[in-house]
Amino acid sequence: MKLSQLLVPTLKEDPSDAEVVSHRLLLRAGMIRQVARGIYDFLPLGLRAVRRVEAIVRDEMNRAGAQEILMPAVCPAELWQESGRWQRYGPELLRFKDRHERDFCFGPTHEEVVTDIVRREVRSYRQLPLNLYQIQVKFRDEVRPRFGLMRGREFLMKDGYSFHTSEEDCRREYENMFQAYSRIFTRCALEFRPVEADTGAIGGSRSHEFQVLAESGEDAIASCPRCGYTANVELAATRAEPQPAGSGRSLEKVSTPDLRTVDEVSAFLGVPPERFVKTLVYVTDDGAPIVALVRGDRSLSEAKLKNFLAVSAVALADESVVQRVTGAPIGFAGPVGLRTRVVGDAWLRGTRDAVTGANEGDRHLVGFDLERDASGVELADLVAVAEGDRCGRCGEGQFAIRRGIEVGQVFYLGRKYSEVMRATFLDPAGAERPIEMGTYGIGITRTVAAAIEQNHDANGIVWPIPLAPFSAIVVPVNQAEEAVRSAAERIYAELRDRGVDTLIDDRDERPGVKFKDADLIGIPLRVTVGPKALARGNVEVKARRADKAAEIPVGEAAARVADEIGKAL
Amino acid sequence: MKLSQLLVPTLKEDPSDAEVVSHRLLLRAGMIRQVARGIYDFLPLGLRAVRRVEAIVRDEMNRAGAQEILMPAVCPAELWQESGRWQRYGPELLRFKDRHERDFCFGPTHEEVVTDIVRREVRSYRQLPLNLYQIQVKFRDEVRPRFGLMRGREFLMKDGYSFHTSEEDCRREYENMFQAYSRIFTRCALEFRPVEADTGAIGGSRSHEFQVLAESGEDAIASCPRCGYTANVELAATRAEPQPAGSGRSLEKVSTPDLRTVDEVSAFLGVPPERFVKTLVYVTDDGAPIVALVRGDRSLSEAKLKNFLAVSAVALADESVVQRVTGAPIGFAGPVGLRTRVVGDAWLRGTRDAVTGANEGDRHLVGFDLERDASGVELADLVAVAEGDRCGRCGEGQFAIRRGIEVGQVFYLGRKYSEVMRATFLDPAGAERPIEMGTYGIGITRTVAAAIEQNHDANGIVWPIPLAPFSAIVVPVNQAEEAVRSAAERIYAELRDRGVDTLIDDRDERPGVKFKDADLIGIPLRVTVGPKALARGNVEVKARRADKAAEIPVGEAAARVADEIGKAL
Repeated sequence: MKLSQLLVPTLKEDPSDAEVVSHRLLLRAGMIRQVARGIYDFLPLGLRAVRRVEAIVRDEMNRAGAQEILMPAVCPAELWQESGRWQRYGPELLRFKDRHERDFCFGPTHEEVVTDIVRREVRSYRQLPLNLYQIQVKFRDEVRPRFGLMRGREFLMKDGYSFHTSEEDCRREYENMFQAYSRIFTRCALEFRPVEADTGAIGGSRSHEFQVLAESGEDAIASCPRCGYTANVELAATRAEPQPAGSGRSLEKVSTPDLRTVDEVSAFLGVPPERFVKTLVYVTDDGAPIVALVRGDRSLSEAKLKNFLAVSAVALADESVVQRVTGAPIGFAGPVGLRTRVVGDAWLRGTRDAVTGANEGDRHLVGFDLERDASGVELADLVAVAEGDRCGRCGEGQFAIRRGIEVGQVFYLGRKYSEVMRATFLDPAGAERPIEMGTYGIGITRTVAAAIEQNHDANGIVWPIPLAPFSAIVVPVNQAEEAVRSAAERIYAELRDRGVDTLIDDRDERPGVKFKDADLIGIPLRVTVGPKALARGNVEVKARRADKAAEIPVGEAAARVADEIGKAL
Repeated sequence: MKLSQLLVPTLKEDPSDAEVVSHRLLLRAGMIRQVARGIYDFLPLGLRAVRRVEAIVRDEMNRAGAQEILMPAVCPAELWQESGRWQRYGPELLRFKDRHERDFCFGPTHEEVVTDIVRREVRSYRQLPLNLYQIQVKFRDEVRPRFGLMRGREFLMKDGYSFHTSEEDCRREYENMFQAYSRIFTRCALEFRPVEADTGAIGGSRSHEFQVLAESGEDAIASCPRCGYTANVELAATRAEPQPAGSGRSLEKVSTPDLRTVDEVSAFLGVPPERFVKTLVYVTDDGAPIVALVRGDRSLSEAKLKNFLAVSAVALADESVVQRVTGAPIGFAGPVGLRTRVVGDAWLRGTRDAVTGANEGDRHLVGFDLERDASGVELADLVAVAEGDRCGRCGEGQFAIRRGIEVGQVFYLGRKYSEVMRATFLDPAGAERPIEMGTYGIGITRTVAAAIEQNHDANGIVWPIPLAPFSAIVVPVNQAEEAVRSAAERIYAELRDRGVDTLIDDRDERPGVKFKDADLIGIPLRVTVGPKALARGNVEVKARRADKAAEIPVGEAAARVADEIGKAL
């Protein structure tokens, strides 16, 4: 493709409204343009990157035995009313009426529609299992769309759904999809981690998120270098470290006027935060108060607390509840003498000679001994994992913490939709049973953004070869010279003959502008044809990731580039 | 692909609600399912056919120099308000508000969005021409969605838009797109006609429709076998035939009590309809009445009348206007003595001894002589063309009439959007000028339906090879026999190795069921592996279109089939 004929409106300046790297670079590289908040045009280069991801996803889904279908964007309310999501889903669901005043929504996912297909067509266990997926435009009416393609309103998603006669078969397919997803992101050449997203009560994990690692990621994930166990820091199981033995001094109340935080009291008393027992009052979704303890230098994981309590939500209590539970204002809570249920992070086991609140305004306790002074506390793994914590799975490795962007999720749904929508099958004995379901999503456009978050430098995007809109770019400098122009065109033609998606920058621009644009749009391999090297019979080949170019004979350039590309695809 | 693992829910019975062949067969062949009125799921086979069309369209658009982009389905009202379409477009436009109460619509076409891209990015004549297209899901809220994919509400469309510095360059691109469209439908192996859709005043045609020929088509199109000129019967230029010389008798009023139609009066008077002058009263869009004449056995083309009068609409007048213009009730109008402007179809030139209305209740005139009795009549080509009419372009060929389904349109837009949305460029002299635009659409899902309307028989779909979801199907009969099963699997494997998209019917079904389904879903080539032929070392190869199968050696089957497919793609 000739760059002069391609709509690639690169920008010299950073757009002022772009908060994250991928948003900024997609705009600057002329790949997307905003139409409305969270709604974008994909210009030719941007769409090509999207199509690369799509092609890899499609190929691996098909290989894994899934079947591609296409469900409508406009979905009738009736199906959503049946599942109950019409009532439960908030304003993120874009709802509207057609000309006959019938209710519809713009599908953000398609559980109802696909379950409706299956309940109409599947009768017998012989027709199962079935794995159906689509790649379709979605809409989620985010209240604050931002970060470009990272959190847009209209986006492309691969959503897949599988149907089974048993939980066991559903787990087999879950594993199959897990492997397919691993192949997909590996083929995208992205550094990623499958992360256990839920460690619910019933036998092991039910959901994995696929996270592309990037410093800008919203999620912090802990990974054990020894056993490979990886989970969100809020959920990763850790092994509690033994507490240093304290001196065994007796409990004593001290005055801490108007000092409420661990840091404030620590500074005032001259005791390090790890010798504090932080006491937090929560309310569960059924309204019951609960007191939770964590070491003063660590954070409590609300997700772990929620799972431990087997409730669906916990929230920090307000002033009045704290007052009622502890008898003191916020900032002075402690575990001694409470009548409420108290749970504590397991790291606190053996705590002696610690500082904690006195349940009295402007007072703390020193010399606190957990077993002696608060014997009823239930201990469990409730801490948000930090770098270096011991892995709770193998008990030996030390967690490394990375940030990630969620680009995919595999999820065991069970009978959530099939029961309420009556999607059943007849088993071999002729009994009617609900179908077991799994669901599997990949954010196609989000993967493009995540790839940029992970792969960029000060000059622009650094596409992984499998996702690059074009694999190579030929840049003639001083193309007014006939020799330069014809050598460039020969290499361009040869690259195309070799099946390499190639751009040629035939624009009448200065070399500096051409190099800047080539770097900005992130084409993996650049062949520079300039008069000086050409006089020596050479051209320069430079990888976008590399610091330096290699000078190689004109006649070998195309073969060398094709070879590099071939190795990467 | 193994048919046992593919979701192909074929139906034995015709669905009761399907009115046209393509709708019926798409449902019966398990290719689509209705989700709501005019809204469908594409199941695996249906989607594969859609993707075939998409791939051909994409390939030829790219070859023609167009660039693929992707614009959003959800479009902000502001752009539509700028173009005026927000106000003009009727209830077919699906409108809704987002959570912040901002107005949006589900784009039925994207003139505004694409013009907005171009006005933001294009400054100079150097950046033009530009041809941008997308393949995107559309929504048009038809009041009566019907005929399955023929007139659905949600559908897939390729919409393209080109941008130029001059009308001349826009015409060049129009021709380029015309050729691309011709290649597209040729590659789809569809019998089609590019039809002149508008013969407006300014120098030649400004729009062509691409019509797939099918008896069930909504449009009647006239084609000259001699010069190739093809147009809608409402618009095709015809050469008036000379009228037989009449006897020259004098004008006489006769009583025709309560007889109003040509047929009624013809029967009553014993004069054939072609000797009648039918007189119709119209009102133009500016409210002026106009009288139009046509031979009694022919139909007037309102499209031609509209073009001749250079107005944007004509409608038959109501009773009161007829009474005012003719002084008589409806059914007795004639051209004699009117004060209103009268136009007549050119076939009436030289009319003598004819019958027409007397402008008086229950009376007609006989012995009517057009020149003698109604000398001010303007004659022009106003007749709707019928089979055998003389071509108005070459003047010699005789029109053949076929029915067609519109699947594509190329359209010269001019400055309609660029002026109102101020999409301009600077010309070489530095002057700001509006961009000239063309627009080019193909109904992707409609093309799939049209292909079936054109290609089917009593047993089901007969896919043209380039659009078939699979090119070949291997049918083992009596697959319990090891020899049959293994021969079938070998041929299946070899076909796949040869790159042929192949199904194998590995279901545990009777041969009759397998053959019926293979015919219904319309796979172009079938390889039947049965014990008897196999005992002779042979299998049967049958084209879906052919009456009979050929028995050929097992070892040659895959090569033969691959060869047939290769020739057709």
